[in-house]
Amino acid sequence: MKDEPAGPHCAINAGDGALIQLGHGGGGSLMRDLIGKIIAPAMDQASLDIESDGAAVSLGGPAAFTTDSYVVSPLFFPGGDIGSLAVNGTVNDLAMCAAEPSYLSVSFIIEEGLSIETLKRVAQSIGAAAKTAGARIATGDTKVVERGKGDGLYINTAGVGSVKAPFAPGPSRLRPGDAIILSGDIGRHGVAVMASRAELDFTPPIRSDCAPLWDQVRALIDAGVELHCLRDLTRGGLAAALVEIAQSAGCEIAVDEPEIAVSEQISSACELLGLDPIHVANEGRFIAVVPAEHADLAVATLGSASAGQARRIGETTPAHQGGRALIRSAYGVKRQIRTPKGEQLPRIC
Amino acid sequence: MKDEPAGPHCAINAGDGALIQLGHGGGGSLMRDLIGKIIAPAMDQASLDIESDGAAVSLGGPAAFTTDSYVVSPLFFPGGDIGSLAVNGTVNDLAMCAAEPSYLSVSFIIEEGLSIETLKRVAQSIGAAAKTAGARIATGDTKVVERGKGDGLYINTAGVGSVKAPFAPGPSRLRPGDAIILSGDIGRHGVAVMASRAELDFTPPIRSDCAPLWDQVRALIDAGVELHCLRDLTRGGLAAALVEIAQSAGCEIAVDEPEIAVSEQISSACELLGLDPIHVANEGRFIAVVPAEHADLAVATLGSASAGQARRIGETTPAHQGGRALIRSAYGVKRQIRTPKGEQLPRIC
Repeated sequence: MKDEPAGPHCAINAGDGALIQLGHGGGGSLMRDLIGKIIAPAMDQASLDIESDGAAVSLGGPAAFTTDSYVVSPLFFPGGDIGSLAVNGTVNDLAMCAAEPSYLSVSFIIEEGLSIETLKRVAQSIGAAAKTAGARIATGDTKVVERGKGDGLYINTAGVGSVKAPFAPGPSRLRPGDAIILSGDIGRHGVAVMASRAELDFTPPIRSDCAPLWDQVRALIDAGVELHCLRDLTRGGLAAALVEIAQSAGCEIAVDEPEIAVSEQISSACELLGLDPIHVANEGRFIAVVPAEHADLAVATLGSASAGQARRIGETTPAHQGGRALIRSAYGVKRQIRTPKGEQLPRIC
Repeated sequence: MKDEPAGPHCAINAGDGALIQLGHGGGGSLMRDLIGKIIAPAMDQASLDIESDGAAVSLGGPAAFTTDSYVVSPLFFPGGDIGSLAVNGTVNDLAMCAAEPSYLSVSFIIEEGLSIETLKRVAQSIGAAAKTAGARIATGDTKVVERGKGDGLYINTAGVGSVKAPFAPGPSRLRPGDAIILSGDIGRHGVAVMASRAELDFTPPIRSDCAPLWDQVRALIDAGVELHCLRDLTRGGLAAALVEIAQSAGCEIAVDEPEIAVSEQISSACELLGLDPIHVANEGRFIAVVPAEHADLAVATLGSASAGQARRIGETTPAHQGGRALIRSAYGVKRQIRTPKGEQLPRIC
């Protein structure tokens, strides 16, 4: 194989129509140019050291570590894109550990033929979302796969952060009689992506709730709310979060359907799409399980930090039967929440 | 959409021929079963909390953070597979920061239709490699994409670790006259994967050098070798590592071709495949840049810790012209090492 001289002709053409080639993932000058001239500037992370494979991080005290890969389709949807989703999703996983998002990694798996303009838009979105969330992109990686071996772009992010609560929240801390607080209305992300995929035009357009949650969690900690458990409502929606917590804790959870905020527009859209909002993915909502005596403080605190739709939706019950979640209708009928076996909405995140 | 009851019929059938379905990535009971019954047991990580999206980690003092996605094709090759590669690659990125690998994340992007048996083999390999490297798998994620939108399996790993050297090594620490130490013979990983892809049968089979490097780095630190810079030789091989370091440091590096160990078998195979071994990927070799007076100690230390082929291959020169790497042939002819523009061996890692 022949060496090719480095030089100005190697520069990335990011103009209209420039496409990713397999060589952009090859560890050579094309890749260095792609990262150095397109991705890093677009993410606007001045301190990102693209010449090193690892980054120095410093964390005082207990820390949290998390990762998620993002395969959402389409890449852009009202209210967000795969880039903001990849940042907020991982930031929120840290927030659910009561951890301030400190450092993120970003790793791209790009399908040959993706337009460089698209990659740039996504990288800009990553940079903006990281800034909003107060997280630093510390390290990353880029791979390119052949046409037909991907779907444009997949992104993995991992994150590390410092735990700021007196103790790490988790299902094992649940006590009978704890209050379940839901931070806002549900269903926006899943419906926005589905509508975008099906090219349904709602007026006004339904936007994803994709947003970082650390500020809200931080506000709860600062207000002195004891956080027994936090869970963001992503794949599987509110239903999956409640069932998973009940199963992990071995307790019973009961929630009141009328207390669960669903906007009129989402409610109509779900009817149209044949979806139950409690199963639909969100990317900017969470539940907090707190001692009953802290419920009002939690709702009031979230009310000022979030969209004002935080509500106490239920409680953990003295466990007659552990490991299940119940929902009470407006007419007092109780039914057990069951999570679907598999995919309700594929590639929603 | 109808809820489907959870129950024994949801159990994963991991017998012959069971295949991944889209639903295995849907956040429902199929996914929980896949992770809880196949992936987590196969990785044999007793402390992996599959019910939480983040993990608590504790790190004393300065830390390092790194990530890589792995898209190697084929998934299995002599000497390793995508699982051991994904662990060792990230462990080695930490080792190059002089950081002990403490915690890893593992995230799967699975193509619908992958056999569950294959996934299990890879997860077992991940578990075994993590144990060998002394790293704990702390957190993970699983996504499934439709047939034709992936290539069996892609894996991302991220890692955090504690820096154990008195200072973090990096190109900025290079001084003129520093010695370049190469830890072993080169070219094994790239040739093993290429041979496997082309179904070339070498006798004996050429095995990847895929291995964790932390023990070797640790041995250097313990011996008191001052580590100015460490770089593992992955995509782009020895050539890319030397050029990248010279460019980052703004110095000139010169190495002696006869000092670079290449086995006879790799040398013949490279000739057959039309490759120059200095450009071929490795997954268990690195260079250490150390003060000249520490060179003998470094070689002796690596000699007992590694395969015994560690050598001093060159030095940083008083920079007449910075930012380049030169290679001197056995006949004293100098030429500049240039990295290829793009892909020499696509999907090698």
